[in-house]
Amino acid sequence: MSDDTVNIGLIGFGTIGSGVVEIFNKNTPIIEGKVKKKVNLKKIVDLDIKTDRGVEVNPDVLSTDVTDILDDPEIDIVIELIGGYQPALSFIINAMNKGKHVITANKALLAKHWEEIIENSQKNRVRICFEASVGGGIPILKPLNESLAANNIQSIYGIINGTANYILTKMAEEGRDFDEVLREAQLKGYAEQDPTFDIEGHDTAQKLIILTILGFGIYVDQEKFHVEGINRLTLEDIEFAKRELNCCIKLLAISRISNGELEVRVHPTLVNEDHLLSSVNDVFNGIYIEGDVVGPVMMYGQGAGMMPTASAVVGDCIDLIEDMDKKVTYGPVKSNFTKIKDINEIKSKYYIRLTVIDKPGVLHEISGILSDWDISLESVNQKIQGENKVIPIFMVTHESLERNLREALAKINELDIVKDDETIFIRLL
Amino acid sequence: MSDDTVNIGLIGFGTIGSGVVEIFNKNTPIIEGKVKKKVNLKKIVDLDIKTDRGVEVNPDVLSTDVTDILDDPEIDIVIELIGGYQPALSFIINAMNKGKHVITANKALLAKHWEEIIENSQKNRVRICFEASVGGGIPILKPLNESLAANNIQSIYGIINGTANYILTKMAEEGRDFDEVLREAQLKGYAEQDPTFDIEGHDTAQKLIILTILGFGIYVDQEKFHVEGINRLTLEDIEFAKRELNCCIKLLAISRISNGELEVRVHPTLVNEDHLLSSVNDVFNGIYIEGDVVGPVMMYGQGAGMMPTASAVVGDCIDLIEDMDKKVTYGPVKSNFTKIKDINEIKSKYYIRLTVIDKPGVLHEISGILSDWDISLESVNQKIQGENKVIPIFMVTHESLERNLREALAKINELDIVKDDETIFIRLL
Repeated sequence: MSDDTVNIGLIGFGTIGSGVVEIFNKNTPIIEGKVKKKVNLKKIVDLDIKTDRGVEVNPDVLSTDVTDILDDPEIDIVIELIGGYQPALSFIINAMNKGKHVITANKALLAKHWEEIIENSQKNRVRICFEASVGGGIPILKPLNESLAANNIQSIYGIINGTANYILTKMAEEGRDFDEVLREAQLKGYAEQDPTFDIEGHDTAQKLIILTILGFGIYVDQEKFHVEGINRLTLEDIEFAKRELNCCIKLLAISRISNGELEVRVHPTLVNEDHLLSSVNDVFNGIYIEGDVVGPVMMYGQGAGMMPTASAVVGDCIDLIEDMDKKVTYGPVKSNFTKIKDINEIKSKYYIRLTVIDKPGVLHEISGILSDWDISLESVNQKIQGENKVIPIFMVTHESLERNLREALAKINELDIVKDDETIFIRLL
Repeated sequence: MSDDTVNIGLIGFGTIGSGVVEIFNKNTPIIEGKVKKKVNLKKIVDLDIKTDRGVEVNPDVLSTDVTDILDDPEIDIVIELIGGYQPALSFIINAMNKGKHVITANKALLAKHWEEIIENSQKNRVRICFEASVGGGIPILKPLNESLAANNIQSIYGIINGTANYILTKMAEEGRDFDEVLREAQLKGYAEQDPTFDIEGHDTAQKLIILTILGFGIYVDQEKFHVEGINRLTLEDIEFAKRELNCCIKLLAISRISNGELEVRVHPTLVNEDHLLSSVNDVFNGIYIEGDVVGPVMMYGQGAGMMPTASAVVGDCIDLIEDMDKKVTYGPVKSNFTKIKDINEIKSKYYIRLTVIDKPGVLHEISGILSDWDISLESVNQKIQGENKVIPIFMVTHESLERNLREALAKINELDIVKDDETIFIRLL
């Protein structure tokens, strides 16, 4: 870096990359005023430099050769926006080894290769910034890691996948089925053609890994915690939750301390309408954090999309330029936790939906099994439709051990009168 | 500062000061792990060091003599928590002149003496941190000033006074009168014995001055903008807003760009229930910010109280220790604005409540005057109670110029049939 110019190399000229270029085109006076240096987007590398990205860019800046960035000693900061594991990981490691600071929005990579990336950044005394990897443009990682640093974090509850949240919101608001809303979301560009990653909770899980490191100082591999998506939810569940329980259903990322142990999990959750998270609708994200001294705080905004995500990337740029030598500790240095609680050991209230053939004594039999497993019911709702009709039974339990619930439901599913493939349970917040 | 110990002096051992001591007692391992230095609360100064503050403290640390902090060359950071203008200002200036960094929660002081304090910090190459001055424990100033730094901020809407928000929430939820709820709030400690400062909007205005500096780079004296409290609102207004307009009423701090000009104002505002700010209830605060690239974001949490505010103070401590040499620019360096728009020049939709003696043609006469001033109505609601009865008329205008509204209402107030001291208008968000 010359004294008064910072050179930046951008790898990946897709949606977010184009947003970054647009911000530099538009707000460079603000950025340079802030950092009191000239900021020069020196090189943009992508395999495809022919497609019109809808942003103004000097053709000399474009290249298909990543060494134009990695081997240029004048480049101080590398922004990685190609996503995926490889070659993104090699590019980042390579850039760090050459003394360059790195900014990335790559949650998948951080969630999988966290330790390697952080160790490499420390070894090379360069910084790695990744605000855009969780919650898009919402200031969340830096506030969690810095502003709330005086706190012993107690819990993090995040609505951090816009696609899932959009689908759940539309189902609730418009009384439409999952499949129908999903198709609409795909048409609007809110859901991928293959939406598995979003609706089965994997995207949420990757972001939760990052939040858990910053909040609790422990890295948890995605294989090690419970991840459940929204694909088995029906309109019936959503409408019953709303009408009878005053709840909406949200796909939540949860990291929290319960009786001294750490729980990490991703699943649909019934959230009471009094809770602020219930107001996080459509494609918006909200991250609700409880600290031992600050109490609850929530950050809200657009968790994805070109410009919001680019806002976080350029925010990281400014942060980096203002202090390249800053030593950053991610999360509490010494974690109180070495492992997380097994999902079977958690306690929760549960909503249960069973589909049964209505016969005399059916409810008696079911509640008997639940009772054998120490599960008591807060409410039961059964439509009377006449003998031998197929009917749903909705139940809400008092707080119960999940292991007991699963075992009781396995027994219940064995009953002839129960259509076992339709049994579903959802945890309450 | 010795290489591995940071010494802190705390001036003011009241509620927040005690909270700061409690955090150091409780979370020092977290704090020291983060900053990788020993953090020593070396001296606490207060006029009253006899009262039991409910926190453990070594008696040797206590003093009534502020020079024990200001003249101690070993003290690196001074936390000012006595509030008010003097001697707080002198203490801060004095500490800076002696090369000490300063943390304060003193919004009144910053709002009045901003320029002097910042110039003094720059002259002495020391930092001033004040996250606790707005929104208590909510990370708001640092995110606004740093994470969102790539943005051209478009608007800031804040619910930043817990007392006012508590009163408005309880009036709406429980259908109780302003005076009754205020008395309850005083009993619960949510409102001061003299609540003027909170309910007339002055506290909100001081915090808005700080938000406006960080968001728009311009310091605006409190005398220069419109500040209006909640004391004239009646239960009738709140219930009408809810029932007929699907709105709640919030005391909002507003800084926003409208047609290239900056508006800065504090007043009760009708907020639609679809807007996330309408979900900020009780003593909670919420700050809703729109950036040109990030879109809308909101930060939510406890805007006051011992531990949340202390959380922000200690968060500033950690920030300072991690980088004492950081050069901080507050807000955009060059503001786009040299002045703010006169309240008469703003445009808004308005809710109007008139109290009139019902006579034939009364509505005709009123709407005629409004029409003379170019104000058209979106809705009118008048209870029919019979001739010569005193009745309220509720109206909502289309977007209108405030100057016209004020002049039209002055004319309307001159009418014999209007009880002019009861006329009220409230802006819509």
